[in-house]
Amino acid sequence: MPLQYDLLFSENAMSFKKSAIRELLKLTAKPEIISFAGGLPHHDTFPIPHLKEIVADLLHREGKKILQYSTTEGDQSLKEELCKWLAKDGVSVKPDQMLIVSASQQALDLVARIFLNPEDTCIVGLPTYLGFLQSASAVRGKMVGIPLDDDGIRTDQVKDQITRLIKEGKKPKFIYVIPDFQNPAGVTLSLERRKHLLKIAEEFDIIIIEDSPYRKLRYSGEPIPTIFQLDQGRGYVVTLYTFSKIFLPGFRLGWIIGPKHVIEKMILAKQGMDLCTSLFTQAIAREYIKADRLDGRIEKNIELYSKKRKKMLEALEKYMPKIEGLKWTKPDGGLFLWVSLPPSMNSDRMFYEAIKENVAYVIGSAFHCDGEGQNTMRLNFSYPSEDEIETGIQRLAKVIEKEKEKTDKGLNNVVPQSP
Amino acid sequence: MPLQYDLLFSENAMSFKKSAIRELLKLTAKPEIISFAGGLPHHDTFPIPHLKEIVADLLHREGKKILQYSTTEGDQSLKEELCKWLAKDGVSVKPDQMLIVSASQQALDLVARIFLNPEDTCIVGLPTYLGFLQSASAVRGKMVGIPLDDDGIRTDQVKDQITRLIKEGKKPKFIYVIPDFQNPAGVTLSLERRKHLLKIAEEFDIIIIEDSPYRKLRYSGEPIPTIFQLDQGRGYVVTLYTFSKIFLPGFRLGWIIGPKHVIEKMILAKQGMDLCTSLFTQAIAREYIKADRLDGRIEKNIELYSKKRKKMLEALEKYMPKIEGLKWTKPDGGLFLWVSLPPSMNSDRMFYEAIKENVAYVIGSAFHCDGEGQNTMRLNFSYPSEDEIETGIQRLAKVIEKEKEKTDKGLNNVVPQSP
Repeated sequence: MPLQYDLLFSENAMSFKKSAIRELLKLTAKPEIISFAGGLPHHDTFPIPHLKEIVADLLHREGKKILQYSTTEGDQSLKEELCKWLAKDGVSVKPDQMLIVSASQQALDLVARIFLNPEDTCIVGLPTYLGFLQSASAVRGKMVGIPLDDDGIRTDQVKDQITRLIKEGKKPKFIYVIPDFQNPAGVTLSLERRKHLLKIAEEFDIIIIEDSPYRKLRYSGEPIPTIFQLDQGRGYVVTLYTFSKIFLPGFRLGWIIGPKHVIEKMILAKQGMDLCTSLFTQAIAREYIKADRLDGRIEKNIELYSKKRKKMLEALEKYMPKIEGLKWTKPDGGLFLWVSLPPSMNSDRMFYEAIKENVAYVIGSAFHCDGEGQNTMRLNFSYPSEDEIETGIQRLAKVIEKEKEKTDKGLNNVVPQSP
Repeated sequence: MPLQYDLLFSENAMSFKKSAIRELLKLTAKPEIISFAGGLPHHDTFPIPHLKEIVADLLHREGKKILQYSTTEGDQSLKEELCKWLAKDGVSVKPDQMLIVSASQQALDLVARIFLNPEDTCIVGLPTYLGFLQSASAVRGKMVGIPLDDDGIRTDQVKDQITRLIKEGKKPKFIYVIPDFQNPAGVTLSLERRKHLLKIAEEFDIIIIEDSPYRKLRYSGEPIPTIFQLDQGRGYVVTLYTFSKIFLPGFRLGWIIGPKHVIEKMILAKQGMDLCTSLFTQAIAREYIKADRLDGRIEKNIELYSKKRKKMLEALEKYMPKIEGLKWTKPDGGLFLWVSLPPSMNSDRMFYEAIKENVAYVIGSAFHCDGEGQNTMRLNFSYPSEDEIETGIQRLAKVIEKEKEKTDKGLNNVVPQSP
């Protein structure tokens, strides 16, 4: 009899689910499909000529060093450059409060591993980032969802939920938020609510995990201080950054800042996870920042993505059917916006219809820890071209219109067949 | 009152220990110290001119693609090249039985996470690789150590221990071995024992984790088939490979081969861990193999390291005092050899004396899951120059001689002071 691997797997491993999203995304790979499903930065933003120069020079000058192992905490000189760069955003932090990570999914994994036992709770948004749901589920943590509105997570409800959880003996370990241009909803947490979150953290002695991949990609409105900054070094906030959206994803580089005690624990965890992040890609990033090119690069990204955002908002306005309850967010930055259909409609089911019409999105339920959100969807505007946005939204509008008719006629009460 | 982080950390995180090794290694960083403590490949083996060519060409031809995200399972074309390369070593495997990882520490973490619950047992060598001890401890797995001799792990004892563990209701999940030029001991598992291990795995329905970072670095003797190869596709073996020792460590690249069901579980785990490994470094490695340069590179490594191994064995023969019970292994490959002192001596304590004499090693107890091995040490011969090896072994011989005298006089029964 062949080996029964399932008898050998850990309980955590047996709880891993085959990601529905992953399976759905496979359907969006056909070239005729206009996909709003991805979360990719556009490759036109990659500074290829500068990278060529930097790599040639680095291999020449430091090849023997940068092709070796790095320390677990990361390259000291990269950390110093990042501290200077963060200071321009009002964030005051020292290299020993920073850990270089293999991009922000590793940061999320670190958060889940150092804080969550099986059944431990944490607070997240409804919706929230899929990648965090995966990391937390992998250690069998329990997420408690709090709705968002246009000002971000409903902090009044955060407080109520924590009080309730404490009564049930399930005090949460942390609050996970993406304050700027949240993925997937595109909304930004107001200054008042950032301050409120900090008060809550202090009152209940818990940590805030501030995930900040998109912060520098602001197309309108004024920047709001990070929660880390508002905390003024009191140690209630850990902030996660990544190069994936402002520089490029292929290097797998990000960084975490936080209280030294937490960073040290994360360094110990990372030692057993991947020993160190590539020094080769760390050195390239360091030289790129040193040459003062990063801010210019971000400017160019903003220019490109803000046009696409505008295009998508215009197309939605122009093509979407006038249906009661159909609405979408108008993000001030980032890569995504969020569409809500009337509660009677089901975007999970509609996905297959959309694929037939050669347009794709991510089903909103994938971003919900409570299995809800079936009437929502995430649209990405950074990757498709402006023409694709125009055509794709036209197609999507048609799909929604048809689906609404079917729903109204009660034709959608049959279980959908996957194609 | 400031936040009490320890109240928030998970039980796993609270069990992380500050690595004693890491603290000791800090002491070895002074330039006047000849260090046999590292595990670094020598930077003279890094093919810098070829890398320059490959990177320039790749950025030109495929920059927009290779700077994007990769799939979690890894670049298909790299996997195909690796399958062809493994076939030359008699290993028959398809890309869907392979996962690209962020070097072999991530492979060890994956093994620990998908197989071990807290308190679950696994079988390891005495001594065994430190990095595995870290990954397994991070999920609070329990390691049961089996002694090695010159033919590798004592498979007769493996069988006895598994029988005992089953009786106690603690059946191990897997057997972790490094068959070729084991780290730290330098010994190679005989063909007969490889076959015996497979029989044991089959008898008890458990998996063998075959860690194979050094296999291609053989300086004498004939290659023995991998356990994966001997298994002939029956699914009892997962084998871990890395580019770190045969190409370079700075790219953080390795790969795992095994039964599809296990690889699929690992892919799900890796999704939540770091999403994907750098496509940029994967593409460089792929082009390097495609250009048929890897085997030539390995030949050059063998040339360099085999000279250093010879030098270290000669120096040990020449300088070591004639002490009953003092012995060392004579590895056929790899980067390390293993010195045993008489059981009365203590190499943990002697470490500080060695540092005073400007020579360093890794204390053997760091490689023992049972806290034993205080009379052993690991020496690395790949990184120091031949001259450094000569001088360093001379220094070490003197340290051992003096320590032996002190031990004999009973002067070592005082608790040592760290400098």
